[in-house]
Amino acid sequence: CRECDREYPVDPIYVCEFCFGPLEVVYDYEKIKQSLTRDKIQSRPHNLWRYRELLPIDGEPFDAFHSGFTPLVKADNLAKLLGVKELYIKDDSVSHPTLSFKDRVVAVALAKAREFNFDTVACASTGNLAHAVSAQGARAGFKRFIFIPASLEYSKIIASLAYEPNLIAVDGNYDEVNRLCSEVANKYHWAFVNINIRPFYAEGSKTHGFEIVEQLGWRTPDNVVVPCASGSLITKVWKSFKEMKEIGLIEEVNTKVFAAQATGCSPIVAAIKQGIDIVKPVKPNTIAKSLAIGNPADGFYATQVIKESKGFGEDVSDGEIIDAMKLLAKTEGIFTETAGGVTLASAIKLIKAGYIKKDGLTVLCITGN
Amino acid sequence: CRECDREYPVDPIYVCEFCFGPLEVVYDYEKIKQSLTRDKIQSRPHNLWRYRELLPIDGEPFDAFHSGFTPLVKADNLAKLLGVKELYIKDDSVSHPTLSFKDRVVAVALAKAREFNFDTVACASTGNLAHAVSAQGARAGFKRFIFIPASLEYSKIIASLAYEPNLIAVDGNYDEVNRLCSEVANKYHWAFVNINIRPFYAEGSKTHGFEIVEQLGWRTPDNVVVPCASGSLITKVWKSFKEMKEIGLIEEVNTKVFAAQATGCSPIVAAIKQGIDIVKPVKPNTIAKSLAIGNPADGFYATQVIKESKGFGEDVSDGEIIDAMKLLAKTEGIFTETAGGVTLASAIKLIKAGYIKKDGLTVLCITGN
Repeated sequence: CRECDREYPVDPIYVCEFCFGPLEVVYDYEKIKQSLTRDKIQSRPHNLWRYRELLPIDGEPFDAFHSGFTPLVKADNLAKLLGVKELYIKDDSVSHPTLSFKDRVVAVALAKAREFNFDTVACASTGNLAHAVSAQGARAGFKRFIFIPASLEYSKIIASLAYEPNLIAVDGNYDEVNRLCSEVANKYHWAFVNINIRPFYAEGSKTHGFEIVEQLGWRTPDNVVVPCASGSLITKVWKSFKEMKEIGLIEEVNTKVFAAQATGCSPIVAAIKQGIDIVKPVKPNTIAKSLAIGNPADGFYATQVIKESKGFGEDVSDGEIIDAMKLLAKTEGIFTETAGGVTLASAIKLIKAGYIKKDGLTVLCITGN
Repeated sequence: CRECDREYPVDPIYVCEFCFGPLEVVYDYEKIKQSLTRDKIQSRPHNLWRYRELLPIDGEPFDAFHSGFTPLVKADNLAKLLGVKELYIKDDSVSHPTLSFKDRVVAVALAKAREFNFDTVACASTGNLAHAVSAQGARAGFKRFIFIPASLEYSKIIASLAYEPNLIAVDGNYDEVNRLCSEVANKYHWAFVNINIRPFYAEGSKTHGFEIVEQLGWRTPDNVVVPCASGSLITKVWKSFKEMKEIGLIEEVNTKVFAAQATGCSPIVAAIKQGIDIVKPVKPNTIAKSLAIGNPADGFYATQVIKESKGFGEDVSDGEIIDAMKLLAKTEGIFTETAGGVTLASAIKLIKAGYIKKDGLTVLCITGN
């Protein structure tokens, strides 16, 4: 348990029975340190399982052999324009098969769901997760139930339907859908990837960070800008850096971690800017639907990571999001969803304000297409 | 020249001045054989330049270091359903950066355009090529002019506009746009990737085939099903296999090459079915817009490849295309554009009719998202 440190066996549980704190997977780093080397990782296929010792699966992976190891693109045109020395785009918008970083977390969740003998997987989603669960769940032979806010963009829904899941459109926003799903998860024996197997699922996000470090030649960036919805990814990117140091793959971690949110849904950034630990829930109102989580499950932990790393946060308007999407497209040829615009627009503000120093190496996390 | 064998220096020309035949790049295979080994290729980064000796560039590549080497996915669910032994999906729908195999041809075209000192690149496009030229051209610092049929899907146009090219929507179908572009290419000093630098551009398609062979463990498939628009890709996939044999990377080529088209635009398949060499132009009427080329530039050569390899061709209705898109999504978690549906639907018919034997290894070329 992240709060009271109680230990639990590896089971599909996600909340501490004593303090209601979220659970986190524990690894034997000393043992992993003995076996996992840079050479060993580099000799493996280019997918997310190359870091499997640091993922919570017991047996062999059975799928997702083409997910992960997405490009880290040197963005020289954009760097020049923004006046920074070194800038990279970690581009999960070409992730196989569903074009977002959710392929990573779902791959780990499904591996664990199979180990737990579930025959049905499910999720509450703002779009990208629906695709990943629908697509990868189909390929892996699970029954699939997808719960989405009925207000989701038509194009996002259509793409998920192609994979023929059981799709349930709920009249409410993501946070309301999520609450409903918690009740459903308790009633049926279904693996809700982002609820009852969340601790395992979330660990998949670490591969995004592991890859950044490996692709930079085994070093951490000076700055990393991460878009925040539930706040899970930003905490896991930070955890991935720390773990790599822990097991001796890198010498040190001197990275400032920055949160990017849309002004219309920026509870984490608001807490950071106000210098408080309490993330106040908001009602989302932004075009960045894939980030529109008003009550972020890992919001508090996200603020702690940002403080610990001496980073900061920034939020941007819908207009700034669109401008940044266009800028990324016309300078680097990468056209991503609104979340990509949130990341770049926030980074631009953070550079202008001096939070991100111009002489450092900065990575922007682009998480979906 | 493919027709009269006249030789030309390496210049931005594409038609034989004597017989009007198309020009083809010539390589010194004996010399390449001395230097290009399996080990050398495997030691290189995972992008299309790993086969650079077999691509028509003189200097070093300057961009597209994340394009190519897309997944070859073992499609066991689909294989079981269709009753075939081994089935693979070569998945260019997650190509970096614009999600189609056009990133390959454009990468080579832009490298050559820079060697020829062009400052402007252009194309006639049915959609995917527009993205690739717009995106990669922007990143590489070229001025960009894109000519499209005004009837193109709105979503396709929007994506191209994000990269801020000069977009010209022409009131006519692709073949009419293409004719206009030939005139424009003659008037201005612009590198039209699929017109005046077409011989170099088209060579980029070979990397799709090279990768299939390498990813299968240095062997050719028994069958390969390729969607046809201009007919260029199918000829280049065949060429890639033959070249690998020529320089000793593989022992033999025993592949049957199959063409896939939509019934609403199937001039190449029609010629194959009728057993004639003449590809009669048609007026396209299909939802598979990215394949809607009624007068295919390489149609004749496509029919020759199919005959030489003892393959065949098949065409499918719009309904069959949609059903196949859904089938691919729900069995393998891969949701692609209509062209992907054309390939799978055609393959299903070819298997049922016995043209593709059930005990062989078949690769389906999925070319875009």
